[in-house]
Amino acid sequence: MVSDLNSVFSNSAKGMKRSAIRELLKLTQRCDIISFAGGLPSPDSFPIEQLKEISCEVLEKEGAQALQYGSTEGDNKLREILVNRYRKDGVDITTNNLVITTASQQALDLIPKIFVNPGDKVICGLPSYLGALSAFSTYGAQMIGIRLDDKGMRADLLEKELEQMKAKGEKPKFIYIIPDFQNPAGITMPESRRLEIIAIARKYDVLIVEDSPYRELRFEGEPQRTMLQLDGTGHVILLGTMSKIFVPGFRMGWVVAHEDVIDKIVMAKQATDLCTSAYLQKIAARYFEKGYFDQNLKKIIDSYRIKRDAMLAAFRKYMPQGVKWTEPEGGLFLFLTLPEHMNAEELFKIAIDQKVAFVLGSVFHCDGSGHNTMRLNFSFMSKEQNEEGVKRLAAAIKQQM
Amino acid sequence: MVSDLNSVFSNSAKGMKRSAIRELLKLTQRCDIISFAGGLPSPDSFPIEQLKEISCEVLEKEGAQALQYGSTEGDNKLREILVNRYRKDGVDITTNNLVITTASQQALDLIPKIFVNPGDKVICGLPSYLGALSAFSTYGAQMIGIRLDDKGMRADLLEKELEQMKAKGEKPKFIYIIPDFQNPAGITMPESRRLEIIAIARKYDVLIVEDSPYRELRFEGEPQRTMLQLDGTGHVILLGTMSKIFVPGFRMGWVVAHEDVIDKIVMAKQATDLCTSAYLQKIAARYFEKGYFDQNLKKIIDSYRIKRDAMLAAFRKYMPQGVKWTEPEGGLFLFLTLPEHMNAEELFKIAIDQKVAFVLGSVFHCDGSGHNTMRLNFSFMSKEQNEEGVKRLAAAIKQQM
Repeated sequence: MVSDLNSVFSNSAKGMKRSAIRELLKLTQRCDIISFAGGLPSPDSFPIEQLKEISCEVLEKEGAQALQYGSTEGDNKLREILVNRYRKDGVDITTNNLVITTASQQALDLIPKIFVNPGDKVICGLPSYLGALSAFSTYGAQMIGIRLDDKGMRADLLEKELEQMKAKGEKPKFIYIIPDFQNPAGITMPESRRLEIIAIARKYDVLIVEDSPYRELRFEGEPQRTMLQLDGTGHVILLGTMSKIFVPGFRMGWVVAHEDVIDKIVMAKQATDLCTSAYLQKIAARYFEKGYFDQNLKKIIDSYRIKRDAMLAAFRKYMPQGVKWTEPEGGLFLFLTLPEHMNAEELFKIAIDQKVAFVLGSVFHCDGSGHNTMRLNFSFMSKEQNEEGVKRLAAAIKQQM
Repeated sequence: MVSDLNSVFSNSAKGMKRSAIRELLKLTQRCDIISFAGGLPSPDSFPIEQLKEISCEVLEKEGAQALQYGSTEGDNKLREILVNRYRKDGVDITTNNLVITTASQQALDLIPKIFVNPGDKVICGLPSYLGALSAFSTYGAQMIGIRLDDKGMRADLLEKELEQMKAKGEKPKFIYIIPDFQNPAGITMPESRRLEIIAIARKYDVLIVEDSPYRELRFEGEPQRTMLQLDGTGHVILLGTMSKIFVPGFRMGWVVAHEDVIDKIVMAKQATDLCTSAYLQKIAARYFEKGYFDQNLKKIIDSYRIKRDAMLAAFRKYMPQGVKWTEPEGGLFLFLTLPEHMNAEELFKIAIDQKVAFVLGSVFHCDGSGHNTMRLNFSFMSKEQNEEGVKRLAAAIKQQM
């Protein structure tokens, strides 16, 4: 080995940490633990029989193309299907506005790759999805957190921040927002707030990255139009993924944006993995064409609604006074806030003893705040485990109190 | 759209160009053109029937795990299989030394991510695989090219370069080498040269990145031990891939290295795509377990040998005096050198008129040299097309002469 390996690593690698969540997940994989820690879809939702049928069909009918290198932009059929779904919703795009990525996480890597120089500022919610924060940090982004209220990112604080930056001659590279069933907060941004934030982004001439992994998992209430659609001027870059509405094991996502942005993403992707698996893209395309996607999505929604309801009912039944939680209209997560004087990290140890696990809310806060918060996933465990887990968690909280 | 999108792009994105090869490929996809331009395996080698069988088996027997998120390190079974293959060859590694990547191209992105700060120097062959040069450049690497002779990278020139750098207090981050059936040159480095280069790397305390996508595609002659094995001290990082010995459409590769390097690669991969498709990894693992891998590899080798021989015979038959070519013992490519006064770019236009295509050798030269060289692929077209294509190419060369 070279004499001082550490000195050879890049500045970015020197700052890398293993994902707190993924490492925690390893701790919580003991089979007697009820884990609300992951962000995993329920395996009950995986369309195994349909995939057997389609896998064989793809190999039989288009095996030579499916197993070969594909184009960096993605499979044309799949891109057309996705574009047509957006167009049906009234979003005015063509296939030139869409590139397939190796799941959303790749998009979260390519976006800073094409926009961020070390030291550049990026605005995100307090809290925000950890995988995005990690990806942005890898490129040396300096994250500026803006608090959420019950409508998502606060527009007044965002404008104040942008105004202060402007006074110093600065501008962030983009604003990162998860408007639907936010990870980790479970909050959905109403149209009025979306419009406010878009107006601010336009006023200060800043791009918005709209991360939208859960939007189609709505259990109740009216679907909100995407920020991409509400803007319509190319200020918004939208990230979609099949991981939560189909299967994560296919690693398949996409980016919708102005063609000049897509063009750079395609170039960056060429040097990153050349192309996403053509085999899996062709399976996904047929899955849509056969109507399986819409059929199964309905089933996933119904099953997650029941699981969420079970968790919320258990909260009401077992949680001591002073504990607050969000009540998401969809998605996979809700967010729990302990009284200010309590510490979720200490609670975590007690909870593991009680055989229940969660993720510390603090890991989602780029400023290190959120000591008394935690994220709970309600999609992976069964309805009964959700009830029993909340009971155990409430006992742990009472013990800590 | 923001008022000046170009000003928002990162320095790295501002320098991005679409891959010359992938763009050329689009031009050469006219069905009447015999294209030696791509680096594509032959679709005849794709084990479609076996994959139908195994895809169904994986979905049936381990569907829930296959379709879920996997670990960043990769599927344990597949890692064990790969490690055991190396161990059987006498390479002393454990699964802690191996991580699965989303094909080799991802490894070529993760390596500079963990080692390269903008302006850092990286040494490569003249010529070298374009996808590596592009990936390294994305991170701001300054590429230093070292000429090859018929044994691969020249050790004397390498040492001279390292000595000059040392005099200036500089050191490259790593030396990038493709020792077996080099892309694009088709040259294999004998053990003596490998040992020389390893000794130099140790003397100057520099890492070696050994890119090894073709090593198992040997048509004749003795297999050479990998530089990883010859070194044995952790100076070498080896990249492997399933793309040329199984199918490219699975996007599956791996890195073998010292555990501290693997550890950083795993962290970098977490922020890049979380994990490689568990479904495809489980299919690949079963493909090895059933003995299909070794069976098919033999078939691929036999078929490519015939195609290479056809191309070489046609060269001898049709090429005018003054044209030279390499005679690779394996892999997918050979390299052709025109007389010094000729220009491959001008020839390209004549060749397209003659309905034959190749890749300009200059794109593989980080210093812009190689104006009179070209890379030819012999694996994708049929034996007959290889013969006819060389005939057309020779006619184009004669016309230009």
